[in-house]
Amino acid sequence: MKKSKPRVAIVMGSDSDYPVMKSAEEALRLFGIAFETRIISAHRTPAEMMTFAQKAKTTGIEVIIAGAGGAAHLPGMVAAVSVLPVIGVPVPMGSLQGQDALLSIVQMPKGVPVATVAIGNAFNAGILAAQILAAGGARGDETVSKKLSAYKEKLRKEVLAKKLKSDS
Amino acid sequence: MKKSKPRVAIVMGSDSDYPVMKSAEEALRLFGIAFETRIISAHRTPAEMMTFAQKAKTTGIEVIIAGAGGAAHLPGMVAAVSVLPVIGVPVPMGSLQGQDALLSIVQMPKGVPVATVAIGNAFNAGILAAQILAAGGARGDETVSKKLSAYKEKLRKEVLAKKLKSDS
Amino acid sequence: MKKSKPRVAIVMGSDSDYPVMKSAEEALRLFGIAFETRIISAHRTPAEMMTFAQKAKTTGIEVIIAGAGGAAHLPGMVAAVSVLPVIGVPVPMGSLQGQDALLSIVQMPKGVPVATVAIGNAFNAGILAAQILAAGGARGDETVSKKLSAYKEKLRKEVLAKKLKSDS
Amino acid sequence: MKKSKPRVAIVMGSDSDYPVMKSAEEALRLFGIAFETRIISAHRTPAEMMTFAQKAKTTGIEVIIAGAGGAAHLPGMVAAVSVLPVIGVPVPMGSLQGQDALLSIVQMPKGVPVATVAIGNAFNAGILAAQILAAGGARGDETVSKKLSAYKEKLRKEVLAKKLKSDS
Amino acid sequence: MKKSKPRVAIVMGSDSDYPVMKSAEEALRLFGIAFETRIISAHRTPAEMMTFAQKAKTTGIEVIIAGAGGAAHLPGMVAAVSVLPVIGVPVPMGSLQGQDALLSIVQMPKGVPVATVAIGNAFNAGILAAQILAAGGARGDETVSKKLSAYKEKLRKEVLAKKLKSDS
Amino acid sequence: MKKSKPRVAIVMGSDSDYPVMKSAEEALRLFGIAFETRIISAHRTPAEMMTFAQKAKTTGIEVIIAGAGGAAHLPGMVAAVSVLPVIGVPVPMGSLQGQDALLSIVQMPKGVPVATVAIGNAFNAGILAAQILAAGGARGDETVSKKLSAYKEKLRKEVLAKKLKSDS
Amino acid sequence: MKKSKPRVAIVMGSDSDYPVMKSAEEALRLFGIAFETRIISAHRTPAEMMTFAQKAKTTGIEVIIAGAGGAAHLPGMVAAVSVLPVIGVPVPMGSLQGQDALLSIVQMPKGVPVATVAIGNAFNAGILAAQILAAGGARGDETVSKKLSAYKEKLRKEVLAKKLKSDS
Amino acid sequence: MKKSKPRVAIVMGSDSDYPVMKSAEEALRLFGIAFETRIISAHRTPAEMMTFAQKAKTTGIEVIIAGAGGAAHLPGMVAAVSVLPVIGVPVPMGSLQGQDALLSIVQMPKGVPVATVAIGNAFNAGILAAQILAAGGARGDETVSKKLSAYKEKLRKEVLAKKLKSDS
Repeated sequence: MKKSKPRVAIVMGSDSDYPVMKSAEEALRLFGIAFETRIISAHRTPAEMMTFAQKAKTTGIEVIIAGAGGAAHLPGMVAAVSVLPVIGVPVPMGSLQGQDALLSIVQMPKGVPVATVAIGNAFNAGILAAQILAAGGARGDETVSKKLSAYKEKLRKEVLAKKLKSDS
Repeated sequence: MKKSKPRVAIVMGSDSDYPVMKSAEEALRLFGIAFETRIISAHRTPAEMMTFAQKAKTTGIEVIIAGAGGAAHLPGMVAAVSVLPVIGVPVPMGSLQGQDALLSIVQMPKGVPVATVAIGNAFNAGILAAQILAAGGARGDETVSKKLSAYKEKLRKEVLAKKLKSDS
Repeated sequence: MKKSKPRVAIVMGSDSDYPVMKSAEEALRLFGIAFETRIISAHRTPAEMMTFAQKAKTTGIEVIIAGAGGAAHLPGMVAAVSVLPVIGVPVPMGSLQGQDALLSIVQMPKGVPVATVAIGNAFNAGILAAQILAAGGARGDETVSKKLSAYKEKLRKEVLAKKLKSDS
Repeated sequence: MKKSKPRVAIVMGSDSDYPVMKSAEEALRLFGIAFETRIISAHRTPAEMMTFAQKAKTTGIEVIIAGAGGAAHLPGMVAAVSVLPVIGVPVPMGSLQGQDALLSIVQMPKGVPVATVAIGNAFNAGILAAQILAAGGARGDETVSKKLSAYKEKLRKEVLAKKLKSDS
Repeated sequence: MKKSKPRVAIVMGSDSDYPVMKSAEEALRLFGIAFETRIISAHRTPAEMMTFAQKAKTTGIEVIIAGAGGAAHLPGMVAAVSVLPVIGVPVPMGSLQGQDALLSIVQMPKGVPVATVAIGNAFNAGILAAQILAAGGARGDETVSKKLSAYKEKLRKEVLAKKLKSDS
Repeated sequence: MKKSKPRVAIVMGSDSDYPVMKSAEEALRLFGIAFETRIISAHRTPAEMMTFAQKAKTTGIEVIIAGAGGAAHLPGMVAAVSVLPVIGVPVPMGSLQGQDALLSIVQMPKGVPVATVAIGNAFNAGILAAQILAAGGARGDETVSKKLSAYKEKLRKEVLAKKLKSDS
Repeated sequence: MKKSKPRVAIVMGSDSDYPVMKSAEEALRLFGIAFETRIISAHRTPAEMMTFAQKAKTTGIEVIIAGAGGAAHLPGMVAAVSVLPVIGVPVPMGSLQGQDALLSIVQMPKGVPVATVAIGNAFNAGILAAQILAAGGARGDETVSKKLSAYKEKLRKEVLAKKLKSDS
Repeated sequence: MKKSKPRVAIVMGSDSDYPVMKSAEEALRLFGIAFETRIISAHRTPAEMMTFAQKAKTTGIEVIIAGAGGAAHLPGMVAAVSVLPVIGVPVPMGSLQGQDALLSIVQMPKGVPVATVAIGNAFNAGILAAQILAAGGARGDETVSKKLSAYKEKLRKEVLAKKLKSDS
């Protein structure tokens, strides 16, 4: 998978978010999708965040995954600047354990959506990115599309294999 | 725009959701994206919902927008069946005004994401669908992509035009 | 109790729910009610879930207990398909500790109820199932009915036995 | 339907709850189930509430539906006294619009369940009561069981009839 | 303090509440107020609860402190039966950590108040009971009243003694 | 009732609280308890608030009822200064409709309780004040005590009179 | 007050916020503080927002007041760029009525504070700006400082004048 | 830094708040701002709290930082008395982990603001105090102002240094 030009950018404001966000990498690896992961902070590196979001599309990025906790501004600010689809991951931390981040990420105003996934569920952000790459019918990435179907089937089989019957 | 084969399906469980959900149609029309809108209920027509979700991709649908209120299962169930990206719109209703729907839609388990937008913000679901169609670099829909850039510029200009200065 | 045909089905989306859900088994054993326990996922095995719910009544199941966490769709989807009474157990997990599951399970739309019990209280789902089997006057299961009365009396006596008087 | 001995008791603490609770009556009428409706208050007529709950089963009642708002104690107290299945309806009122009642009704301790339905959804309490009467296989009320199947089919057809296709 | 006739009754539904509720005893001991502590459950011993509440005043009890968690009905039911002032202590437990108990205790309907204190703060229930005994001017318990003033002064001095000045 | 020396003080921070708080007056009038009502603000007249709280007991006040909305500090500050029992009424206002006031009033620290009643339920604050005046056995105000018993009986009869039986 | 160089900038993302935000202007006028009011959107004019925040200090602005609703990013982004003190006003709107905006504004990460005031309370943002201008002892703006003292006294007198005594 | 006259006062109701509040000291030390830290309780030393708040300005204090948990009255009461800007820190504790304190501190009424920072984020209270001291253009503390700019740059560089690129 090495050396491919990244198609998905995973960004987060702090390396303390990485234990949560690395699951997005896991998911993307399942589908053989090249990605890059960066620390970019809306609050501490706003200019670099702006530059990243402005240039992401031209550097070949097709989808951006942004994770943040607390007053989680990173996903929304990246979405404010870029026309790429932005997936937001509320990172649980502190007293409110991601309830603040969920609202800060999902409640975006008219015209600037962030595709929000469950609190702490960066893995699903990776799956969603794969679905976006696979979308588009003939235009879509058929390799990823097939892997998504296979992944769904794998999930199904895992559940079926676990079926326990404990008669009373 | 008429007669085009729909690329986005907008589904909702009840026609009482339509006053909220029709904003998704408005957004898609802005970008010239063909869509279809259907009433499909996870709770009252589960079999038809399953069939719809299974067939959506083969009928040319590229993105599904699903709106629901209360114990909002429609977006998640469609996502359980289809590999297409599913955008969920929490519809505000009753005592909890969409707080229940937001959690029912966004808190999906590992492997089955729903791209959730703000409570009642079906317009943003349309924008996000457009972004997904436009994603993919060379493969992406360049017409939509250009319209998205133009839309962002239009939003910007509207704000700048409204700039009021009320000196004290 | 072995070998009896199961009258209650206990279903859950993942074996990670079992440490919570096994209390439903405990409760049913108290009343000598035969049950079966299965892993069935609304999100990962939607087709199997549909089949299970469609056939449950014809296989002799009288009540279904369904446990789920997060965007807990299993109880509501089973209730969408089956006419049997469905008891929902919100399973606590993640940042919201069952608050999401409670709302996803209880806030069902008109026409499709789920009999919801307390967060994590699968034991009470078992008691409620027993009450449903015992209901119906002459038609009701009198054996279970008597055991329910005895259980209530046992609860009462346990409390009375614990009565501590620490005079100041 | 008149003159039949009531099989379901609908109780509520105040006639101000009746505009919400009468939907339970509507639902029961759909299935031809005889019921009685009473004002009984856990807080203002505790002794009468106790007597009602103690005697309900012996007077032929098979299921109790109890609605309450605020610190909604009626469903739980009836369940504390009777072995019948008790269905609780959180009635929305005041500043918290039923969020308080939902928690007061659903969060019952081990051994004493209340089958809770959605905030303000007394109609579903009626459906659930019908499902309970119909449960029990051969023992169950087959007339109600058939009407429940027909009702599910009616819900389905209503949705299908409403299916709107607004091509873009 | 031994052998005095109890003036305050401390009741709770389960001995699992005692680690929280024993702080009420501590507070009452500070003021030399005789009390009794009992396990009485609204849900498991409703008849005994009714009897206790009916007789409490005639046995010399002047104030009742009732602690409960979850769907905390004990304080409200005791207040429904007795004319004595009832102090409610929300006991933290389970997923909602007392938020459910707080609402179940405080949101009582018109005519039946419960004097609610902070989640888990049974100590303050003891202080409040002392304040109630001391109230009433000439009629009030002057011994307790003086101890309350002394206690307030002690709290003040403890804070003043702790005053730390860490100059920068 | 005129000219009696007030035994209960009703205080609130603003005359905008009076439409809620006047129900406390209604309740006290039911029991023939003399009271005074004042506008005293913790935030805008802190010195006068301190003076009021310091002197209340010496002027014959036996119980203080304090209502406040938002960051509702008045009940807690009065309780910080006076040894009298303080009853807090969360006044609903603004976006949070008393949820903020409830927490600001009830979550008092160790040593300084406020007897909190339901959001907006100033009537119950009046009832609770009456219960406090009546408490104390022989020392208690027997006139109020008898009126409280009569009031409970009146509540009971009102409910019984409203008992509607709508047979199906 | 006209023609003075503005010392406080009031910014908001949309003119729909102005009915709430204009109270900040009212407050500043009370203290004779020159201000300017602008529509600047973090989501729709991110570049202009960055430029504004970068230049604010050099154009003589001493304090920035930023109001926003929903996923309210404006105050935090301005604070990310400028070293000036930024006061955030959560604007109530939509289903969550400012609860989302409150968390999005107040829960800022280490190093980048926003001085948050109550939901919808832009007036207090103006008062706080005045307090900041007046702070600094000898360096502080003594004119504003005196007006603040006078304002506090005026608030006090208004409350005292409203003192109503309704003896029972 | 020793011996300088304190310009910022840090107050809290209990030494149990100090582990949270000491981060305010850390922040102030970064900017070389002299401060004093005191235990002052609104609830246990109300008179001393009043005196402190009345005199703070005359003793040279320019900004007050007040931390409190639960029914957190200290910041608001200090703001009620002093004209200085007051920064409030909600201290997480108990079942609600600062959600109660956040609302008690931020939801102040018209005329009496508290500049609220994130739950448990006393460090940011220190930064905000520094920003207030630096505000005021020519009048502002230029030394602090420069250090704030340097601090922002330091934050930026720390993030840039951490930038990790994990290509897939």
